Amino acid sequence: MELRIAKTYLSQGIQIVSKAVPNKTTMSILECILIDASGEDIRLIANDMELGIETHVPGIIIERGIIAVDAQIFANIVRKLPEDDVTILTEGEKITILCQKAKFTILGKDGADFAYLPEIERRVEVQVSQYTLRDMINRTIFSISGNESSGMMTGELMEIRDNHFRMVALDGHRIAIRNVELPSSYEDRKVIVPGKTMSEISKILSGDTDKFVNIYFTDKHALFSFDDTIVVTRLIDGDYYRVDKMLSTSYETKVTVQRRELLNCIDRATLLVKEEDKKPVIFMIGEDNMELKINTTLGSMDEVIEIDKEGADMNIGFNPKFLIDALRAIDDEEVTMYMMSPKAPCYIRDDEGNYCYLILPVNFITIE
Amino acid sequence: MELRIAKTYLSQGIQIVSKAVPNKTTMSILECILIDASGEDIRLIANDMELGIETHVPGIIIERGIIAVDAQIFANIVRKLPEDDVTILTEGEKITILCQKAKFTILGKDGADFAYLPEIERRVEVQVSQYTLRDMINRTIFSISGNESSGMMTGELMEIRDNHFRMVALDGHRIAIRNVELPSSYEDRKVIVPGKTMSEISKILSGDTDKFVNIYFTDKHALFSFDDTIVVTRLIDGDYYRVDKMLSTSYETKVTVQRRELLNCIDRATLLVKEEDKKPVIFMIGEDNMELKINTTLGSMDEVIEIDKEGADMNIGFNPKFLIDALRAIDDEEVTMYMMSPKAPCYIRDDEGNYCYLILPVNFITIE
Repeated sequence: MELRIAKTYLSQGIQIVSKAVPNKTTMSILECILIDASGEDIRLIANDMELGIETHVPGIIIERGIIAVDAQIFANIVRKLPEDDVTILTEGEKITILCQKAKFTILGKDGADFAYLPEIERRVEVQVSQYTLRDMINRTIFSISGNESSGMMTGELMEIRDNHFRMVALDGHRIAIRNVELPSSYEDRKVIVPGKTMSEISKILSGDTDKFVNIYFTDKHALFSFDDTIVVTRLIDGDYYRVDKMLSTSYETKVTVQRRELLNCIDRATLLVKEEDKKPVIFMIGEDNMELKINTTLGSMDEVIEIDKEGADMNIGFNPKFLIDALRAIDDEEVTMYMMSPKAPCYIRDDEGNYCYLILPVNFITIE
Repeated sequence: MELRIAKTYLSQGIQIVSKAVPNKTTMSILECILIDASGEDIRLIANDMELGIETHVPGIIIERGIIAVDAQIFANIVRKLPEDDVTILTEGEKITILCQKAKFTILGKDGADFAYLPEIERRVEVQVSQYTLRDMINRTIFSISGNESSGMMTGELMEIRDNHFRMVALDGHRIAIRNVELPSSYEDRKVIVPGKTMSEISKILSGDTDKFVNIYFTDKHALFSFDDTIVVTRLIDGDYYRVDKMLSTSYETKVTVQRRELLNCIDRATLLVKEEDKKPVIFMIGEDNMELKINTTLGSMDEVIEIDKEGADMNIGFNPKFLIDALRAIDDEEVTMYMMSPKAPCYIRDDEGNYCYLILPVNFITIE
């Protein structure tokens, strides 16, 4: 095999597919990137068996071939090369990388051992802008469960109903929901995509509003196609939680507050919280202000902020991290919180139905 | 005690003295910053018994007092406060920190338990610009030994002879020397300052050429005074190595090379070096070019760069890290290396005598 690729493109391509290279694995072939120049173009592929990424890299094929190369070593070498054309030459499993006067020789692996991406029939399609998909992921992904044994909670729901596109993430203590209207209508579809896939895709997407992602579904897989890249992911099996049943529009107390001010205030309160002692931040909601209090082994903090209130006064406690995550995922200057009781979920949602963040309150015994 | 200090100044002061707060200690009082407002002004002090820092903070003393406060908690709280005046109030050991509507309460410690900085008689003085001192430290400090048991090698030599100021760091495999001429002459002086002190001072110094540092010496201590800050450090006992005896001006091979090109080339070579296998980079010095080679378990790399050479051809091996450190500490576009044999020290030095970096070569058996 002999290829010539501009360093910039090669480096970009490696960066994209590396997102599907597992950090730890017992199968060393999974730690590799496949360079496939057996056809008309140069493709880089990585596949951890759950998530696979393939990207096209512009370049010249002088002699066709296929080789697998350790992703980390290859990425490191290419990153440090001068900005010029890179020549990749193979002789058996020996790979020579040439750029200007620098010459690296490393050992590759037979491409035949590499697991290609599963073939996905490109039939059922949804099109969203790269911006929209990235945005929806970033504003919900933090609510998935980090515990690998919690099944569907480790994934995100992607739901299409006509032209409504919804993403949902939940971990048993909170729910994050984002809605958007698509320019076209599509066949109804409801799939659970692994959180890792969502998170890696959001890092590769350019975020342009005028570039698109085409999404194709089968029963077991989803394929995301954008720019010169395709991402294939296994789907999580099962019927997702009935989220709509968990949502309620009735409330006892409605609080409207400056988002940035509330966020800074909770952020300060968390200074006194050590990881291990899960101390709640307590909201004492009064007529036109709200006192925030926290009390830990390190000390105590309180601060009063102004609010607009409808309904009853209430004292309610929250895990400060959950509030911070939700408030950071919202752009609005003002946010509105809806509460029923100190033991019932609190909803932060807008009137337009673009977002809804549900947070379960934390019980607190006494307020000093 | 009751103080009012602008958040910016308080934050800066905490950042400066925190450099003398040890990361790990069994004495919790050492983890504290002392706020001393017992006199006419507000001073913050930290002291890990080897290195002590004291800085003045502009502010208003409403009621005098002294309190010690956990450095990390205090720093975190102040950093997150709004940009406004901060009020610090104490009642016994209870400290209340107020800023706008935020109120923190934490527990302090009795200031009487705190170890003040040792009194240093300000007699033998040297004055250098902040820029010069910081620069000399940064261009030598990497050559001290990181091994805490290696005594004098963990410190840096500061030597004053008339108006010559020299700093030396060495670790048994390399030496870094920087010389500068001071505007005035001073009494001869030779002290060994702990590397940690040097490193922390370099982070606090502003780097201005028209701001000065006054340095005072006793047998056991040195005091650095600059801006509103004083740093007191214990000195390392002993007669420093006779560095001049290790330097030689004769050579067999003299190589002049573009510094940036050589640096990038060695940097690429180190990609293939794992921490554990200390593989040398081999220089094969020919008539007007030099081939750099490295050969490790991960692969091999070679690259040819152009040089100006005087004297004999030579093959010589180096620890690439030592070369990288030295080449990064030099600003010149071209550097000159002087070598006697593959087993004798290599010197990188300028004609003006501003710097000399000595590096011991590494034995290598065969060159493939």
